[in-house]
Amino acid sequence: MNSKKRVTSYDVAKAAGVSQSAVSRVYVEGRSVSKKTKAMVLATAKELGYKPNAIARMLITKRSGMVAVILSSRANLIYPEVLSLLNKRLSEKNERVLLFNLDDAAGLDDILEQIWTFQVDGVIALAAHFDNESIENFKVHNIPVVLYNRRVSGHSASSVCCNHEQGIRQLVNILDDFGHKRFLVLAGPSESDVAQERLECAIKSLSLKGHNDVPIKYGDFSYDSGRLTFAEAMHSNNVPTAVICSNDTMAIGVIDEARKNFGLRIPEDLSVVGFDGVNAVFWHSYQLTTIKQPLEQMTKAAVDILLEQIESPENPAQLRLWSGAFIEGNTVGPVRNEQ
Amino acid sequence: MNSKKRVTSYDVAKAAGVSQSAVSRVYVEGRSVSKKTKAMVLATAKELGYKPNAIARMLITKRSGMVAVILSSRANLIYPEVLSLLNKRLSEKNERVLLFNLDDAAGLDDILEQIWTFQVDGVIALAAHFDNESIENFKVHNIPVVLYNRRVSGHSASSVCCNHEQGIRQLVNILDDFGHKRFLVLAGPSESDVAQERLECAIKSLSLKGHNDVPIKYGDFSYDSGRLTFAEAMHSNNVPTAVICSNDTMAIGVIDEARKNFGLRIPEDLSVVGFDGVNAVFWHSYQLTTIKQPLEQMTKAAVDILLEQIESPENPAQLRLWSGAFIEGNTVGPVRNEQ
Repeated sequence: MNSKKRVTSYDVAKAAGVSQSAVSRVYVEGRSVSKKTKAMVLATAKELGYKPNAIARMLITKRSGMVAVILSSRANLIYPEVLSLLNKRLSEKNERVLLFNLDDAAGLDDILEQIWTFQVDGVIALAAHFDNESIENFKVHNIPVVLYNRRVSGHSASSVCCNHEQGIRQLVNILDDFGHKRFLVLAGPSESDVAQERLECAIKSLSLKGHNDVPIKYGDFSYDSGRLTFAEAMHSNNVPTAVICSNDTMAIGVIDEARKNFGLRIPEDLSVVGFDGVNAVFWHSYQLTTIKQPLEQMTKAAVDILLEQIESPENPAQLRLWSGAFIEGNTVGPVRNEQ
Repeated sequence: MNSKKRVTSYDVAKAAGVSQSAVSRVYVEGRSVSKKTKAMVLATAKELGYKPNAIARMLITKRSGMVAVILSSRANLIYPEVLSLLNKRLSEKNERVLLFNLDDAAGLDDILEQIWTFQVDGVIALAAHFDNESIENFKVHNIPVVLYNRRVSGHSASSVCCNHEQGIRQLVNILDDFGHKRFLVLAGPSESDVAQERLECAIKSLSLKGHNDVPIKYGDFSYDSGRLTFAEAMHSNNVPTAVICSNDTMAIGVIDEARKNFGLRIPEDLSVVGFDGVNAVFWHSYQLTTIKQPLEQMTKAAVDILLEQIESPENPAQLRLWSGAFIEGNTVGPVRNEQ
């Protein structure tokens, strides 16, 4: 029993007395095969417990039924939710998610070599920095790609993005309206495209309101990095009255640190904003003012665009840019009159 | 350019003037092929941009380089972290994760049919209820399976589990030592094996300390279900002084609801315990007393056992049971003297 090998089309062909190619043809729609052969193959297959092999079938249909998703364990903490939604949507379209992990050991080139080898039907990238050269590589291999919250200059690949600039400008304008002048920007890790974009948007939005040379600190999107970088800023010469965080989890760290170790009330003594709209934003203890990414719509668009490009590779690349929803929490207020 | 098809071994064979099988043999270690043919195939492959196809290779080596992971979107909220760790470990072993989503539309049987079709090297199940019959099916298809935090009676499949009973008994004993007599058990969704097991452990541990007929409420592992079921209990005739939650996220909901809508102090007025050890447990606002699952060790064991069984299918099934780590938070205290 344990030494039993999987039943292959070869075994069925042998037992049924037909060619292996005849067995394959039975399981591929639209291929010609005689009624008699078909009946014989199906009966033999049932007897032996043979299941048509999606992978063998793929060699004929050129569809593997798999979509590669490129992830990084150091990416923004909202990505488990994005992955879960992508997985659900792709399942509904009869595509399976095949995960590729981008970390220090394996660079993007290694990952791409593996992806060509598996001949996936398409790729959705939640991590990695892409340039026109890597996108050209996708075209050479005839594998469509959709970038999630990242773009390539020249728009050579389709992208689904949240409008970070619009959202961050909205948050900055509210803080400015409330009279804040001493800001801290708490950025994400410098190797993250999303972190980089959000940082640039914050600097630009602040500058448009006349706030220049705003101090910047870098975290890694984690709660602890929010806490620790905020504590550092409080011990500097430039104590902020408003903290603009590049994600919600760091903002939650800032709130907890401010309350516990500096006795500050939120928002009376300190205003804090985040980005993403993770679940904890809505918890009573936080009620964070933030921008919620429309993950449902963004993941649906990513899957729809990808499937269209699998069907019609000549489709031009497109950008779909979604506005985030403003979440009016309870962590932003007028600057304290202290002078 | 856009209408270009992927280069296949057939194209290489044709251009090089050799058989398709000769092309395959070049890319499979240990297969005989003449030096001349090999050189010709490699030169032609390079010229045409052909990459050896992992899937074609799999038809020969009978390894696909893929491990199926069965997930459910309604499973415990710690599973994104489990998936991330599994993905990292399997990547290191040169295996890719192929995701299968178990939800209402597709039952386990449907998922298994798909899994046989993809001929994965093995399966790790984070969701679904398995019986001896479904395990027998894995043996028929010669695909090893490791169950994660779930077991089959008769131990016909390997399992990696956290010792829920030990952890929950420890929490119950502390609450009992502090003099609590009015408990609420906040269970997870009844269709979850983990929720069911944790509920049974809580009832048994309470009973061992003489607490019988303890009220039970059912949530869905979410923050809101923790809040709402706790509020219901507070409006009943049987107000608890200690809440035993089947996961941390519900416990956090209980804490926020108790503080905000009932003005209770934790732990002076109410003791709360959870299970899992998610990140938010350690946040200043919560400091939840709970049991942390040793995810690093559990995921490593799951991958190691699976790879061993792929190599040696005759290996007997094994259970690896890990003790959780007691996290001494700040949400458990003596029962308030109110009578």
